[in-house]
Amino acid sequence: MITNLENILSDSAKGMKRSVIRELLKLTQRDDIISFAGGLPAPSSFPIDDLKKISCKILDQEGSSALQYGATEGDRKLREILTKRYQDQGLQITTDNLVILTSSQQGLDLAGKIFLNRGDKYICGLPSYLGGLGAFSSYGGIPVGIKFDEHGMRSDLLEETLEKMQEQGEIPKFIYVIPDFQNPAGITMPEFRRLEIIEIARKYNILIIEDSPYRELRFEGEAQRMMYELDNTGQVMSLGTFSKIFVPGFRIGWIVAHEAIIDKFVKAKQSTDLCTAPFVQKIAAKYLEEGLFDKNLKKIIEMYHRKRDVMLKAFEDFMPEGVSWTKPEGGLFLFLRLPKDMDAEDLFKIAIEKNVAFVLGSVFHCDGSGKNTMRINFSFMDEEQNRIGVQRLADSIKALMNNRVEI
Amino acid sequence: MITNLENILSDSAKGMKRSVIRELLKLTQRDDIISFAGGLPAPSSFPIDDLKKISCKILDQEGSSALQYGATEGDRKLREILTKRYQDQGLQITTDNLVILTSSQQGLDLAGKIFLNRGDKYICGLPSYLGGLGAFSSYGGIPVGIKFDEHGMRSDLLEETLEKMQEQGEIPKFIYVIPDFQNPAGITMPEFRRLEIIEIARKYNILIIEDSPYRELRFEGEAQRMMYELDNTGQVMSLGTFSKIFVPGFRIGWIVAHEAIIDKFVKAKQSTDLCTAPFVQKIAAKYLEEGLFDKNLKKIIEMYHRKRDVMLKAFEDFMPEGVSWTKPEGGLFLFLRLPKDMDAEDLFKIAIEKNVAFVLGSVFHCDGSGKNTMRINFSFMDEEQNRIGVQRLADSIKALMNNRVEI
Repeated sequence: MITNLENILSDSAKGMKRSVIRELLKLTQRDDIISFAGGLPAPSSFPIDDLKKISCKILDQEGSSALQYGATEGDRKLREILTKRYQDQGLQITTDNLVILTSSQQGLDLAGKIFLNRGDKYICGLPSYLGGLGAFSSYGGIPVGIKFDEHGMRSDLLEETLEKMQEQGEIPKFIYVIPDFQNPAGITMPEFRRLEIIEIARKYNILIIEDSPYRELRFEGEAQRMMYELDNTGQVMSLGTFSKIFVPGFRIGWIVAHEAIIDKFVKAKQSTDLCTAPFVQKIAAKYLEEGLFDKNLKKIIEMYHRKRDVMLKAFEDFMPEGVSWTKPEGGLFLFLRLPKDMDAEDLFKIAIEKNVAFVLGSVFHCDGSGKNTMRINFSFMDEEQNRIGVQRLADSIKALMNNRVEI
Repeated sequence: MITNLENILSDSAKGMKRSVIRELLKLTQRDDIISFAGGLPAPSSFPIDDLKKISCKILDQEGSSALQYGATEGDRKLREILTKRYQDQGLQITTDNLVILTSSQQGLDLAGKIFLNRGDKYICGLPSYLGGLGAFSSYGGIPVGIKFDEHGMRSDLLEETLEKMQEQGEIPKFIYVIPDFQNPAGITMPEFRRLEIIEIARKYNILIIEDSPYRELRFEGEAQRMMYELDNTGQVMSLGTFSKIFVPGFRIGWIVAHEAIIDKFVKAKQSTDLCTAPFVQKIAAKYLEEGLFDKNLKKIIEMYHRKRDVMLKAFEDFMPEGVSWTKPEGGLFLFLRLPKDMDAEDLFKIAIEKNVAFVLGSVFHCDGSGKNTMRINFSFMDEEQNRIGVQRLADSIKALMNNRVEI
């Protein structure tokens, strides 16, 4: 073994940490723990029988190309079907505006590779998806966090921040947002806020990355148009994925963007993995083509809707005064806020003893704030577990409040 | 659209080009062209019927976990099976030394991310796999090419180069080699050469990346031990893949390395795609577990052996004097050398007119040399096409030699 491994690492590798969440998930995989920590879809939402049929069909009909290398841009039919879905929503795009990625996480990674030099700044929410921050920081990107109000990223603070940065000759490379059912906050940006942010981005000539894994999981309320559509000039690039609305086990995501940006993603992807697995792409395309996707999506939405309702009810039933939470209209997460002087890390230790787990909100805050916040997932556990888990969580909070740690 | 896209690109993105080969492949996909250009396995080698059965079995037995997110390190069973195969070969490793990647191309990309700062140098062969050079250059790595003799990378030139670099205070980050049936040269390093290179790497305290996609495709001659085994200290990391010995359409590769290096790869992979698709990993594991892999591999080896023989015979039958070629003992490629004053690019134009395609050898030479060389793939076309294609190629060469371009 070489004797200087730590010395020869790139600056990127020197700063790399294992994901807090993924490491934490390992600790919470005891059978008796009710875990609200992950961001996993419910396994009961996976259309196993249909996928058996479709897999056989693909191997019968297109086995040779499904098992061969594919185009870097992705499977033509899958791109067409996804493009059509966006067109039906109102987006003015063609297949040339959409390429398949190996998960939308790859989209975040490639965005980092394409836009960030070491030390470059970018804008993100306070809070923001940890995997985005991780991907960008692996290219030396430096996050500039913008606080949230009930409508998501505050546009007044965004403008103020950009103005200050401009005065100092610092223009961030992009604004990273999750407009629908934000991870971790569970907040959806109304259209007026989306428009404000687009306007500011235009004023300062900055790209927007619209990360949209949960958009199709709306339980109630009205869909807000995608920022890609509201902009319609190519200022916005949008990331999508099957992970929460179909299956994560295929690792299929995609990006919708201006052709000039798509070109950069294709080039960057080539040296990263040549292409996304054609086998799973073709299965997904056939699954969509046969109309099975929308049927299953409806089932998922109903399931998560019920799970969320049970959880919100349990919060109301069990939570002590001083605790507040978001009421997401869709997605997988809600966000809990403890009284200001409480630390969710202290709570975590008690909660684990009481067999319930969550993720510290602070890990989603690039400035280390949010110590009194927590992310709660409601999609993975069943309804009963959601209720019991919240009860345990409430008991833990009460114990912490009373400073009486029961073990 | 922002008005300054080209300006806000990272230095990496500014240097990115679409892969010459992948772009070229698009041009040569006319039905009437016999293409020796790609590096594709023969579709007839894909075990479609077995994969139908296995896919159904996986969905029946482990559907929920196959379609869910998985561990970044990869599927436990697949890692165990692959580890066992290496142990049987003589490698002293445990499952902790092996993690699954989304193609071995991802291994090259992550190696770049982990070890290269912009401007860092690394050693590669003249010639070398283009996808390796592309991945490293996407992190700003600068190749230092070492010429080949009939045994692969010349150790005398390697030592000379490293000595000179050391004098100038420049230590390259790693040595990139493909010891078995090298792409594009078709050369296999004998053990004495492997040992020489390991010794030099130790002397200068440099890691070795052993890229090994073709190793198991040996038609004849004796297997040379892996550099990982010959070293056995962790100086070497080895990349493997199913793409040439099973199916490329799953995009499954892996790395074998010292635990300290594995740790870096796991961290880097987390922000890149979270995990490799569990669905295809579980299918592959089951396929190997049931003993189907080795049976099919034997079939592939026999098929490519015959294809190579037909091609070598055709070379002998048709090639004019002054042309030489390697006689690979396995793998997918052989390398053709035209007389020194001839340019393969001139030949390419004639060859395309005669409906035969290949890849210019120069694209594999980081210093732009090799203008009179060409890479020829013998795995994708059938035996008859291999013979006819070589005849067309020989005709093209003769035409170029006679300076009589027939159209």
